[in-house]
Amino acid sequence: MQPHVQVVILAGGSGTRFWPASRRRMPKQLLPLAGSPNEPLIAATIRRLAGLVRPEDVWVATSADLVDATAAVLPSVPRAHFLAEPVARNTAPCIGWASATIARADPDAIVAVLPADHFIGDEVAFRGVVARAIDVARDGWLTTIGIVPTRPDTGYGYIEVGAPIAEGVNTAARFVEKPSPKVAEAFVAGGRHLWNAGMFFFRANVMRAAIAKHLPALGAALERIDAAAASGSEPSALAEVFPALPSISIDHAVMEKAERIAVVPGSFGWNDVGSWEVTWEMAVRDAQGNALPEGTVAIDATGNLVRDLTQGAAGKRWALVGVHDLVVVETDDAVLVVPRSCVQDVRAVVAVLGKRGEVGEL
Amino acid sequence: MQPHVQVVILAGGSGTRFWPASRRRMPKQLLPLAGSPNEPLIAATIRRLAGLVRPEDVWVATSADLVDATAAVLPSVPRAHFLAEPVARNTAPCIGWASATIARADPDAIVAVLPADHFIGDEVAFRGVVARAIDVARDGWLTTIGIVPTRPDTGYGYIEVGAPIAEGVNTAARFVEKPSPKVAEAFVAGGRHLWNAGMFFFRANVMRAAIAKHLPALGAALERIDAAAASGSEPSALAEVFPALPSISIDHAVMEKAERIAVVPGSFGWNDVGSWEVTWEMAVRDAQGNALPEGTVAIDATGNLVRDLTQGAAGKRWALVGVHDLVVVETDDAVLVVPRSCVQDVRAVVAVLGKRGEVGEL
Repeated sequence: MQPHVQVVILAGGSGTRFWPASRRRMPKQLLPLAGSPNEPLIAATIRRLAGLVRPEDVWVATSADLVDATAAVLPSVPRAHFLAEPVARNTAPCIGWASATIARADPDAIVAVLPADHFIGDEVAFRGVVARAIDVARDGWLTTIGIVPTRPDTGYGYIEVGAPIAEGVNTAARFVEKPSPKVAEAFVAGGRHLWNAGMFFFRANVMRAAIAKHLPALGAALERIDAAAASGSEPSALAEVFPALPSISIDHAVMEKAERIAVVPGSFGWNDVGSWEVTWEMAVRDAQGNALPEGTVAIDATGNLVRDLTQGAAGKRWALVGVHDLVVVETDDAVLVVPRSCVQDVRAVVAVLGKRGEVGEL
Repeated sequence: MQPHVQVVILAGGSGTRFWPASRRRMPKQLLPLAGSPNEPLIAATIRRLAGLVRPEDVWVATSADLVDATAAVLPSVPRAHFLAEPVARNTAPCIGWASATIARADPDAIVAVLPADHFIGDEVAFRGVVARAIDVARDGWLTTIGIVPTRPDTGYGYIEVGAPIAEGVNTAARFVEKPSPKVAEAFVAGGRHLWNAGMFFFRANVMRAAIAKHLPALGAALERIDAAAASGSEPSALAEVFPALPSISIDHAVMEKAERIAVVPGSFGWNDVGSWEVTWEMAVRDAQGNALPEGTVAIDATGNLVRDLTQGAAGKRWALVGVHDLVVVETDDAVLVVPRSCVQDVRAVVAVLGKRGEVGEL
């Protein structure tokens, strides 16, 4: 019998770009920011794996203070499968630890690592690409999915496609950091570069070996954690080991260096839900390009997004007059007003609140 | 003994320009839109007459459905002095009826008519001008105050100054409708035109005679109301007579036609509080020209007005990023977003709500 596929959902996001909807204690992945207005992004991430992965084979890596809130929106995930990182150390330590944990029970397990907070428009196509990536990983490749780019976006890393391995699978020739606009345009025109969406598929033992080789500090830490787990003292070992680990992505630490890296190209309406601008793009909009609460009075108003997340939203009437391309988001304790062209600056608001010591609250 | 001065406050405003703060049941004059944040405009209107008029000599003309709300903010005004118009018929019928009511008790009374919803910056100067206007009215003139214009505003009517009557008093040569920009500029440059602020001072019997001569339909109606009052049936007579009266201003009906019209020029920081733009102009603003709730995070934001009138305003954090010259007003059941340059269009919002049948609520 083939080993089961175990999925690790990376859910450590801090959610500053969706303030005031997102908060330290209620980050982006726990909110329904794209797709169904009632389904948190992380719940959709797990739901759309139906048929590929059993619910009891889902693991969620998040920060200790988010475990309860995350578990609350994921009733199908066993409580023991929530991996609470003592401190955030980017993806390499997290993926290493999760893989080691899974390998203890099932050394041959295939691990699929998926970000918690992305949107997938075509779920059928997505499942097909994931199934392919799992097959490739089963053959021992460290496998990633590369999104066929639809525009010269400078906000993503790119993966250069190498030699074909099989139908619809290539080696990954190179991982490229976020490019300049000029380079991004050349990438899209050339047709040999894909977006790095942070999805990884591998045999647990293959990743473990790659970590041991390319990031030995993490390899040693994982040995120590394994030993502690065997003696029932994993939490204290984690608390000691994790803060000392380098904060580095799995891309940098392993994927860019290891042998036998494969990439499966995919086109399935992927979106990383990176800002309120994306929420506007994906929202149902009226003929004037507005995405507004029901009943809003809009006069000479175009291209606006209003999200009313307050308790009293149902009984509230919004009126927009003469405003264009504006984002307004309201929660019970905060209101954000920002042009769509400036939504990235929302992080600056959170920074100001942090300096004031208000971030715990707001 | 000289007759007392009786003041009639015109408080029939429907308050569409300050939506969503103002509503049919909570019009502008009942709100603290200028000056003290705790003093409704109408309360300030009466307070600033202290020393000139006794509280028991104040009358308030408003619509029947606003009497309770108006009385609630004016505890010093006798309940019997609230004159509830059965229907709104502009200022001539209202002033005629109020004057007739006052004259029944005191035929020689001097009546001062003041709008409920204006702001006066220099109250000492204002009281001086009013005292002068009362003196002139005592001599039998239909007297008005003309505001020395500070800009070529096309939103006001103007009064052309005629021959001098006494120190600081002239005849009013002509009442002019809202002028074109070119004409307004000529008015301001010429120095012979004043803003018509809708303030009137007269002997009750002089106004009664002028109404009888220039608006005989109203004259006859007042005879009928007087007779009904004598027989204790004033309310039913009012309900019958008022709807049939012409809807016309006292300016058009009487002041533009009568003999012996006087004007007292005044400069006392007058403002008719005509829009949210005025609220912004008169607000305490920060170095970037913003008037924002305490604690607001403002990043690259200039010239904005935010008024949070919700119950939870104290605990709410606003954030404005990259927005300029914007007005945002929130109440518990509505939010308005409009550029300062478009605040006059707020009336269009109320019109839309009216068409939807939502105005009673919103």
